[in-house]
Amino acid sequence: MIKYLKTDPWLIVEDKFSQEHHQSSESIFSIGNGNFGQRANFEEAYSGKTLQGTYVAGVYYPDKTKVGWWKNGYPEYFAKVLNSANFTGIDVKIDGETLDLATAKVSTFKRVLNMQEGTLSREFSAELPSGKQVQVSAIRFLSMAAPETGVIKYSITPLNGDFEIVFTPYVDGNVVNEDSNWDDAFWTQIDHEVNSGLGVVVARTNKTEFEVATAMTTQSFLNGSSTEAAAADSSKEGYVESAYKVKVGKGQVLDIFKYVAVLSSLNHKKEEILENAKKAVNGAMATGFETMLEAHVAKWAAIWEHSDIIIEGDDEAQQGIRFNIFHLNQTYTGEDSRLNIGPKGFTGEKYGGASYWDTEAYCLPFYLATAEPKVSKQLLLYRYKHLERAIENAGKLGFTDGAALYPMVTMNGEECHNEWEITFEEIHRNGAIAFAVYNYIRHTQDYPYLAEAGLEVLLGISRFWSQRITFSEEKGKYVMLGVTGPNEYENNINNNWYTNTIAVWCMNYTMEALDWVKANKAADYDRIVGKTNFNADETTRWKDICENMHFPFIESEGVFGQQDSYMDKEQITVDKLDPAQRPINQYWSWDRILRSCFIKQADTLQGIYLFEENYDTETIAKNFKFYEERTVHESSLSPCVHVVLAARINNMEKAYELYHRTSRLDIDDYNHEAHEGLHITSMAGTWMSVVEGFGGKRVINEQLILNPQLPKEWKSFSFKVLWRGSQLKVHADASKCVISNETDVPARVILYGKDYEIAGGASIEATK
Amino acid sequence: MIKYLKTDPWLIVEDKFSQEHHQSSESIFSIGNGNFGQRANFEEAYSGKTLQGTYVAGVYYPDKTKVGWWKNGYPEYFAKVLNSANFTGIDVKIDGETLDLATAKVSTFKRVLNMQEGTLSREFSAELPSGKQVQVSAIRFLSMAAPETGVIKYSITPLNGDFEIVFTPYVDGNVVNEDSNWDDAFWTQIDHEVNSGLGVVVARTNKTEFEVATAMTTQSFLNGSSTEAAAADSSKEGYVESAYKVKVGKGQVLDIFKYVAVLSSLNHKKEEILENAKKAVNGAMATGFETMLEAHVAKWAAIWEHSDIIIEGDDEAQQGIRFNIFHLNQTYTGEDSRLNIGPKGFTGEKYGGASYWDTEAYCLPFYLATAEPKVSKQLLLYRYKHLERAIENAGKLGFTDGAALYPMVTMNGEECHNEWEITFEEIHRNGAIAFAVYNYIRHTQDYPYLAEAGLEVLLGISRFWSQRITFSEEKGKYVMLGVTGPNEYENNINNNWYTNTIAVWCMNYTMEALDWVKANKAADYDRIVGKTNFNADETTRWKDICENMHFPFIESEGVFGQQDSYMDKEQITVDKLDPAQRPINQYWSWDRILRSCFIKQADTLQGIYLFEENYDTETIAKNFKFYEERTVHESSLSPCVHVVLAARINNMEKAYELYHRTSRLDIDDYNHEAHEGLHITSMAGTWMSVVEGFGGKRVINEQLILNPQLPKEWKSFSFKVLWRGSQLKVHADASKCVISNETDVPARVILYGKDYEIAGGASIEATK
Repeated sequence: MIKYLKTDPWLIVEDKFSQEHHQSSESIFSIGNGNFGQRANFEEAYSGKTLQGTYVAGVYYPDKTKVGWWKNGYPEYFAKVLNSANFTGIDVKIDGETLDLATAKVSTFKRVLNMQEGTLSREFSAELPSGKQVQVSAIRFLSMAAPETGVIKYSITPLNGDFEIVFTPYVDGNVVNEDSNWDDAFWTQIDHEVNSGLGVVVARTNKTEFEVATAMTTQSFLNGSSTEAAAADSSKEGYVESAYKVKVGKGQVLDIFKYVAVLSSLNHKKEEILENAKKAVNGAMATGFETMLEAHVAKWAAIWEHSDIIIEGDDEAQQGIRFNIFHLNQTYTGEDSRLNIGPKGFTGEKYGGASYWDTEAYCLPFYLATAEPKVSKQLLLYRYKHLERAIENAGKLGFTDGAALYPMVTMNGEECHNEWEITFEEIHRNGAIAFAVYNYIRHTQDYPYLAEAGLEVLLGISRFWSQRITFSEEKGKYVMLGVTGPNEYENNINNNWYTNTIAVWCMNYTMEALDWVKANKAADYDRIVGKTNFNADETTRWKDICENMHFPFIESEGVFGQQDSYMDKEQITVDKLDPAQRPINQYWSWDRILRSCFIKQADTLQGIYLFEENYDTETIAKNFKFYEERTVHESSLSPCVHVVLAARINNMEKAYELYHRTSRLDIDDYNHEAHEGLHITSMAGTWMSVVEGFGGKRVINEQLILNPQLPKEWKSFSFKVLWRGSQLKVHADASKCVISNETDVPARVILYGKDYEIAGGASIEATK
Repeated sequence: MIKYLKTDPWLIVEDKFSQEHHQSSESIFSIGNGNFGQRANFEEAYSGKTLQGTYVAGVYYPDKTKVGWWKNGYPEYFAKVLNSANFTGIDVKIDGETLDLATAKVSTFKRVLNMQEGTLSREFSAELPSGKQVQVSAIRFLSMAAPETGVIKYSITPLNGDFEIVFTPYVDGNVVNEDSNWDDAFWTQIDHEVNSGLGVVVARTNKTEFEVATAMTTQSFLNGSSTEAAAADSSKEGYVESAYKVKVGKGQVLDIFKYVAVLSSLNHKKEEILENAKKAVNGAMATGFETMLEAHVAKWAAIWEHSDIIIEGDDEAQQGIRFNIFHLNQTYTGEDSRLNIGPKGFTGEKYGGASYWDTEAYCLPFYLATAEPKVSKQLLLYRYKHLERAIENAGKLGFTDGAALYPMVTMNGEECHNEWEITFEEIHRNGAIAFAVYNYIRHTQDYPYLAEAGLEVLLGISRFWSQRITFSEEKGKYVMLGVTGPNEYENNINNNWYTNTIAVWCMNYTMEALDWVKANKAADYDRIVGKTNFNADETTRWKDICENMHFPFIESEGVFGQQDSYMDKEQITVDKLDPAQRPINQYWSWDRILRSCFIKQADTLQGIYLFEENYDTETIAKNFKFYEERTVHESSLSPCVHVVLAARINNMEKAYELYHRTSRLDIDDYNHEAHEGLHITSMAGTWMSVVEGFGGKRVINEQLILNPQLPKEWKSFSFKVLWRGSQLKVHADASKCVISNETDVPARVILYGKDYEIAGGASIEATK
């Protein structure tokens, strides 16, 4: 744990400059608007350690796979989000001397991420090696209202003399990815121009041929009046700059406004992209900083209106949860079904920026409750559009007849990951994608989505399970051999309870969906049958599997068995582990981890979490105790599911202990890895912890259920849930819970087991 | 299968030049003398496709590991045998025009590997683009009698004119490994000199700092008289050459003798290596080609005297078995316990030239029967010297107190391999290394070897098993979880029958060895106890494990279970496989292979092979049938064990079918990979097939047992066995077997179940 940031309900504040923490801060203070994003790199030159990072959503490069020992079926490429043109930079020279916080003496430094308004700002005084002192304040944002634009306001005041200041805003496309496998060039620079301060760089990604145009234009003011400084333009391949020279007297304020626009060929014709970028950046300048900021803040206000969580009595928890909600909304806005949510969002390169099952398993519940249904639907359509690729992927592994295996990691539907025990075996991901269809529909009642897209996805997935599951003559049961469950600390196991459970659920749900579409959307049913060559006889085997599937059960403990041989392992509980050997993934060899009973993240409990309504409290409690005692939580995705179940069985102490760790994972840099980027998808897990854990939110049999209960550390907490057209604000303190309907649409809720109808604008109150 | 070589009992003959087959021929015609070796690259320039390869035993480079996803415990380096200075080259210019078989018109080409004498020769006529024709004959060998030297005799005769011939022998140290992971430089050139034709290049390996000096000197004769041609010396870093100009009339013969010496710092002080190389090459020249050849041929005659196998009635089988014996003897001569046997010997780069369990499991039986005991003992000492490293290796995986895990792949005792399912889990290799101690002693009666070195190795290995095996409360038995057996088409399985069997055997044998040393070598016992901190109580757990180990058994089939869950797999026999999908390792994705019941190579049968005396014929037959039906033999090491067991149960048709494939694997290039190098270690398996399979050789209860039986395709076969000081020649035909004692030492043999004492020089005859 590294604690150097101030606690504040709405702000992340670093109030001392530290070169040591700078790269972590670059991650933590990252900003984005769903369309593009960037790490909190400094505007002015910085010769210290930095990870420059600017990322454009949906623009990727298929980097040639690196592998020690090739296995048949591995993909050739790993699609990576690209570090793209740096548009943040403004070089500053004071009487010819470069302003650089690595060489200057810095005092009164303050870096602030304003989560309420979505801005990143900095203030500092710096004394250059020559002794010249300046005061700087900088603020920037990437507009949520006009998501191809952003703006930086950068202000300099001489403190101990009159200085000639030369400032040089630039766009630099000559950037590389640190995580490149083979040091390939990811970009080809194809055009650049700069005229009177209006500069554009256009670059094309190699192989994928995306184009990105990055434009800038700059205005400057001295004590509020235009400086009228002429731009000294210059450029080279991939790079444009415009230098401005201004004499600034002691105490005067030089304000620089750098407007930027980032356009990609996902949204623009290539032949128009350069001109459109110029138009966009000129448009931003015409709008002006203040008006842009107002529109941006208004957008954030609307987001918070739906998604804010307020925690009273625990400032760290308050800051932690908002930090998570803020970053989730910066990363994905649901505007474009070609986009998805990378594990690091726009905050770093690691994991290639591609999509994992995290999206469906952790992020979707957040968007379902806090954003209008179309946002969640975009996430589902993303997978629908990849169905053909998933069928191809299954084909590579020997599956036929429309069986679909969604990739473990992907950008465009093709599998990227190359580690056989994950790529080929961690197939439970298919289940999460099917469950997302169900989860979306049970929240939104959008049954027609089944006919539109859902059923085809479900069919492909169920066909995969049906082929992947085999019959064991020995057991007289259906089995699923050679899988990796969510617990990646076991590989190539047989009959992972979770995977078997979700596979059987998928087949049952697909049969329900078939019935619904056949009954309600006959034309769509015929179309889908024709398109997929579906034969109603296929379900005979599915039914047989569902009735005769093998599920490991540990008789001696009365709990479900994580896999067939789990109990052959030496049973040791986590409390017996030497703390000096934790996390075990840093201290133990891989085989030792595999042979141990220790669990990386919720596995059997993941299944109980998803299908909780099928299990009584005693079963949940028994399984929770058994598996929690063996879980080391060495994935950022682990604690949230345990929090939800711990709260479910009234183990509030355990729930709070696990919650606290997950909510401040990045702010307090628990794992010393914040410098690589933030754990964006696990942030959704933190939201789940509060709303489903402490809030007890469930949707069962079409009904919204709430059971708020307070950790003793909190005075009260409140959150909001969008529910079938209504927005409910749930506020709970130690004695009672109040639910207010903030819309005109009446809502039905089961609170603490009692059924309520809440009229528009009305509230209900109940005690547990 | 690619059949382009002629069948001949003692020769490998290629009688037509084919650029297409050239790289395969470079492998197949490789020569070596245990100390160094080379691919059959041409002497003269060749602009076609070629894999230049010269390798010096024991000289390696630790190439930085390449890996997709790092796992704790992986080694940083993979030690690779190095392509070292090319000493073969003699550039030839005919009136200024380069002789190059890729551009010349070649007629009457013949390349011959004389396995009886250990020479590689070539004859051809070539017409250059200019129309000039020459006849060339070349012969070379790497001396078995003086293993740091070699010689090339290269003769040119103008066929259609008088030509000025400039020939330029050179040594070129500027070579690279094709299999370099990161294109690192493996060598640093540190010295070179050339004076009057005597040239030396000295290079040092990076990181490991071995030095190799490669020297040459040349004589030439025209129609038998010295040409007196002056050497035009020249050199650059890593390279020396001496050009000679001679006018050669039509029909005259220009004979060039290039003497070479290759010295390594394993055997020479670095400060002396250059001078010693000059001395060695001058010594070779002083000895002269003919005398060197005589001594070399005499050494080969002695080798064949011990190791030849004669097969009558099946010329392909005859050639095949000699080819295997020849290459084994070229690769390893047992002179140096720092050396071992790489899977490709000196014939290619693949698999890094390092040692695998192949040495103990396949090669040792060959050397035990065909070479004096000290040769086998060197192989054992190699592992003894690596014991500390094996203890360190086990330590990296969390084992303590002197537990030793020998590496999967090694050059100097450190693990090189990085693939978790093999590196960490294919631990049965430890068993092979222990079994080798036992096998050596039962052949040689060298019990004192236990006290000298064997017991320490056994102790380390048994301690490893004792820690690696855990107790399953569920089963009430000891279990071994997460292993890979010899069948690498299953990974991370539980209770591999073979591994469990050899582990228990190891512990039992170690306890026997402890007793023997304590009773017979008390001082050594005390020394070993002190050195290893051995506590006699340790054996309490070993005994408990040996008595209560779990061994999978398949009741329904009455056979041992390859692993706990083998019968959960769909049971399909190999004859049901679509031939178009074979080998499955080329056509199936890795997960499909893992989930299938198909077996790469002998696994359960490997255990039955090693401990055959413990199982009755019915058990052997049942297991053989069950597993052979499921084995795809996609390792070159697979068929031999099946041959031995098939012959054991009188399934001679199956034995012959499998034998034929293994014996001509490389000559007939069954897998289209001969160009990468030969399958040296599997060649020992071919020898096992004949001597243990068709010959029925066993050593049980200190007795030599023979049960020869003939495949119906053969008229007779004979082989030799060194047995406790005697050498026995076993000759069998369809009606009888004759065993002749070729020494003065009497020998006891059980032939066809009857006990014989064979006096020195005597023979016995028996019918089955």
